[in-house]
Amino acid sequence: MKLVRVGNKGQERPAVVDSQGVVRCIASFTADINGDFLAGASLNALKKTDLSTLPVIDNVQRYAEPVKGVGKFICVGLNYADHAAESGKEVPPEPVLFTKATSSITGPNDNVVIPRNSTKTDWEVELAFVIGKHAKYVSEADAMTYVAGFTIVNDLSEREFQLEKAGQWCKGKGCDTFGPFGPYLVTPDELGDFNNLDMWLDVNGERMQTGNSRTMVYKIPFLVHYISQFMSLQPGDIISTGTPPGVGMGFRPPRYLKAGDVMHLGIQGLGEQTQQVVADS
Amino acid sequence: MKLVRVGNKGQERPAVVDSQGVVRCIASFTADINGDFLAGASLNALKKTDLSTLPVIDNVQRYAEPVKGVGKFICVGLNYADHAAESGKEVPPEPVLFTKATSSITGPNDNVVIPRNSTKTDWEVELAFVIGKHAKYVSEADAMTYVAGFTIVNDLSEREFQLEKAGQWCKGKGCDTFGPFGPYLVTPDELGDFNNLDMWLDVNGERMQTGNSRTMVYKIPFLVHYISQFMSLQPGDIISTGTPPGVGMGFRPPRYLKAGDVMHLGIQGLGEQTQQVVADS
Repeated sequence: MKLVRVGNKGQERPAVVDSQGVVRCIASFTADINGDFLAGASLNALKKTDLSTLPVIDNVQRYAEPVKGVGKFICVGLNYADHAAESGKEVPPEPVLFTKATSSITGPNDNVVIPRNSTKTDWEVELAFVIGKHAKYVSEADAMTYVAGFTIVNDLSEREFQLEKAGQWCKGKGCDTFGPFGPYLVTPDELGDFNNLDMWLDVNGERMQTGNSRTMVYKIPFLVHYISQFMSLQPGDIISTGTPPGVGMGFRPPRYLKAGDVMHLGIQGLGEQTQQVVADS
Repeated sequence: MKLVRVGNKGQERPAVVDSQGVVRCIASFTADINGDFLAGASLNALKKTDLSTLPVIDNVQRYAEPVKGVGKFICVGLNYADHAAESGKEVPPEPVLFTKATSSITGPNDNVVIPRNSTKTDWEVELAFVIGKHAKYVSEADAMTYVAGFTIVNDLSEREFQLEKAGQWCKGKGCDTFGPFGPYLVTPDELGDFNNLDMWLDVNGERMQTGNSRTMVYKIPFLVHYISQFMSLQPGDIISTGTPPGVGMGFRPPRYLKAGDVMHLGIQGLGEQTQQVVADS
């Protein structure tokens, strides 16, 4: 099942995209797609429903982030061996974790805003997953029962803010609009094998990133296990699993985004995102 | 005004503590104390109300964190020159920022749970403030108009998770129960000068930390300005401003918390916290 939230900002409606690509309203099951819905009985009821009986939403103008009210946005750094190499780093001995401000979350096709005083805004296509039930000290064997679904994140970064200022990465990872997320939250039964998904990212039609989730160093079940040793995960939390090679910082000389650029990215089975890059007002 | 949330977990009621120390229910103004309330007209209406007309809540058994639904929990590292020295660090050239998982938030007197496999759980008394309106690219001169109130945070840390594992500090900062917060959210008009507040922390009756906010390196108006250059701040976001000397890591040899310990901490004008330290179940 592909869960979506559609509509203008602040007016999103919960919906599914059926096997014919028709968007259908699920407001009779939930007021919104959030952690409570992902953890609750309504999602199971929806899974047993003939989607063709649900009301059609015509003329969808905007897909929003598919989960509202994300509590934590956790990312894994340097989780593709070839991306670690282009960053001049070794594959870390255990997962590198960092966080993005939840206020960076935006719809998959909304504009990406370059912050004031930024010259190094960079892209990163990533496979992400969303937690479906409270997880703490989870075993790797049980881990996938805690995953509600999969999605795409463009983990935007301002490299000067991230790496050249005092302290932690959060200054360059949490800028507003730096977390496009969606369009779909694809349930595990629909996606199938998440360890063999092609992914790619273009800037202005030029292919920048090409990868496949099979080269991910720390796989999703291990990540659920690992992160849950440090903190509990709640329904609706999103975890983004790292990016394959081809980020702007890895070019010689580096290539960064400027106003007017267009990013187009996708992951097999999870849809596509398109973002216009704009200057801050 | 001292805003509080009182009651057992999941059953908290919004309230104020009046000038006689009486807890009075404000459910007629808001269903809860959250970002919407702090940003809205109800808080102004409450400020104009004779608190003695509000219903008394007797026999308060528990103070919860005074703000529900915190979106971001941002901390400032090494923001006291003498604490930087005990950590073996220079005062940074600009504020060091890091984040705590919002799932680490707990009431000011709730138990602090030592995570499994932890041997280096440490304390940090901190002056914190909560945002009252959407803040982005805020000037230092305007900054205090964005602050809804002040509170105490015990910024607990697992030093091995924070510093000896790959990557960022979040592994050791966001553990469950590592963010006791409260008891009060004290409004700026009631607190007065926030740059001259004594603060202290005892473990088992032994004084560990003694400080005063006058030795804070980067002051609150600058912090609001600075952080808002990187990301917007939303009503209900909490920012903790760093700790004075005396953390466990700074002792030679270091001293860390163990099950059975009791922390008692306070900041002038903001009340006190008491936490029992327990092992994870």
